Amino acid sequence: MQLIEGKVVSASVLDQVKKDVEIIKEKHGITPGLEVVIAGDDPASQVYVRNKVLKATEMGMHSAKHELSNETTQEEILGLVDKLNNDPKVHGILVQSPPPPQIDERSVIDSINPQKDVDCFHPYNVGKLLIGDEDGFLPCTPNGVMAMLEHYDIETSGKHAVVLGRSNIVGKPMMVLMSRKGKYANSTVTMCHSRTQNLEEMCASADIIVAAIGVPQFVKENMVKEGAVVIDVGINRIEDASKKSGFRLVGDVDFDNVAEKCSYITPVPGGVGPMTIAMLLKNAVTACCLQHGITL
Amino acid sequence: MQLIEGKVVSASVLDQVKKDVEIIKEKHGITPGLEVVIAGDDPASQVYVRNKVLKATEMGMHSAKHELSNETTQEEILGLVDKLNNDPKVHGILVQSPPPPQIDERSVIDSINPQKDVDCFHPYNVGKLLIGDEDGFLPCTPNGVMAMLEHYDIETSGKHAVVLGRSNIVGKPMMVLMSRKGKYANSTVTMCHSRTQNLEEMCASADIIVAAIGVPQFVKENMVKEGAVVIDVGINRIEDASKKSGFRLVGDVDFDNVAEKCSYITPVPGGVGPMTIAMLLKNAVTACCLQHGITL
Repeated sequence: MQLIEGKVVSASVLDQVKKDVEIIKEKHGITPGLEVVIAGDDPASQVYVRNKVLKATEMGMHSAKHELSNETTQEEILGLVDKLNNDPKVHGILVQSPPPPQIDERSVIDSINPQKDVDCFHPYNVGKLLIGDEDGFLPCTPNGVMAMLEHYDIETSGKHAVVLGRSNIVGKPMMVLMSRKGKYANSTVTMCHSRTQNLEEMCASADIIVAAIGVPQFVKENMVKEGAVVIDVGINRIEDASKKSGFRLVGDVDFDNVAEKCSYITPVPGGVGPMTIAMLLKNAVTACCLQHGITL
Repeated sequence: MQLIEGKVVSASVLDQVKKDVEIIKEKHGITPGLEVVIAGDDPASQVYVRNKVLKATEMGMHSAKHELSNETTQEEILGLVDKLNNDPKVHGILVQSPPPPQIDERSVIDSINPQKDVDCFHPYNVGKLLIGDEDGFLPCTPNGVMAMLEHYDIETSGKHAVVLGRSNIVGKPMMVLMSRKGKYANSTVTMCHSRTQNLEEMCASADIIVAAIGVPQFVKENMVKEGAVVIDVGINRIEDASKKSGFRLVGDVDFDNVAEKCSYITPVPGGVGPMTIAMLLKNAVTACCLQHGITL
């Protein structure tokens, strides 16, 4: 069994991002810029946003965050996005999810210039993804999984991949990326969800499992074929009296019992987690290149 | 075995379209309009376009076709689309595929106002489809299949559906529609393609098969489970000396040998074929409603 290490893969992606940023600055005199909008005081979101800005800065990018209160209005958020859409030093815009309940998140995303939509959440970019038009962005977490498959040179062509979950953020784009043409793709993908019958059987027949359902340790030993590749996108808190904090993080896979059967498996934490931010910053570089007609 | 009759289902969809057109005309004084652009003299395309315009007119819509020569330019096509985008009597625009080889079809589609994109080929509408944002258009042929499942009240929730083919026109949107939430959806979908390993086995395990690969009579008896639902989207010409024309039309399914095993099956011709135009005209009504804020 080989552990797929998110830190190793993300470091390799970030290495390239840093180099690309340097080239863009030196050759073109432009600093790729990522600005992040956060509304409300959700502590987890605050941490995510801080890390994104810090990491972007570390890569040599321009970065900034815009904090709006919990009571912000749709108008205020749309006004800010409009300002960032028109700011030439901002190549990538990210509105941290979830916004406060009075905000219509969908229409906020729709208002982002698709060329600056580094999350790849805008319908235009989601459509390009499904069509297979690859000159734009790819969604961060699923594309992070693809980078892992590539890094470990895992054969995917013709293999049966089972994606657990049909969320817009992971399940659906994961299915699209794995089933499209190309190296480390070309899989036969089955997308399973809450209504799926014979789910255990389906998983047990898979060469590759990608779990993204948000149920702690859902994928058990009997659901995994000997030699399967298991990618765990879940991050769940469960109570653990032995920890100072009173909890620990586990994935959607029952790692301790499943790992031995796998050819490759991602741990939680330290698996897919670190990939998202790396792919986001890669998208920010792409955004800068798109907007300035730069080919790296 | 029950035959799924495309003529019956499409007639029922068109009945509703005709009623909706009447209501829009009477209540709102607006005539839904569909205009079609055709470039070149491909005989099959000429027939398709003529039928679309005739059927739209028959439904009480305004309709017209714009014929461009085989030598038309990108500029000319884009200019025409721009004119139609800005013409208030045109609610739906369709550019018949394929255009002559000098035309970049993708950028033509990108230039259509998404609110008038009744084929649902524009990335913005494709993205809305994948996201599950249903206030727009649905792609004609796959949505025609969905209308068939609904008409015959076929249980799909939790069932294993195998989609053969990953084209942008059928395979991919079919997978999206069948796996989304909702009645006559919620299937567990596997999308198979040219690289799929164990394809026969995968098909043989399916409760529902949707074949859209363009290979005559590809789906054989051994690939179909007893009681399966088989939807054949293929239309292929094969030689037949017994016919005056020297050929006949067959689907992607070996109908004669497969039919007996099925609970439901579509014939070719007379199956999915007639659905496409019906769903197109339904989209044209939707386009008119969207542009005028009409709720039916």
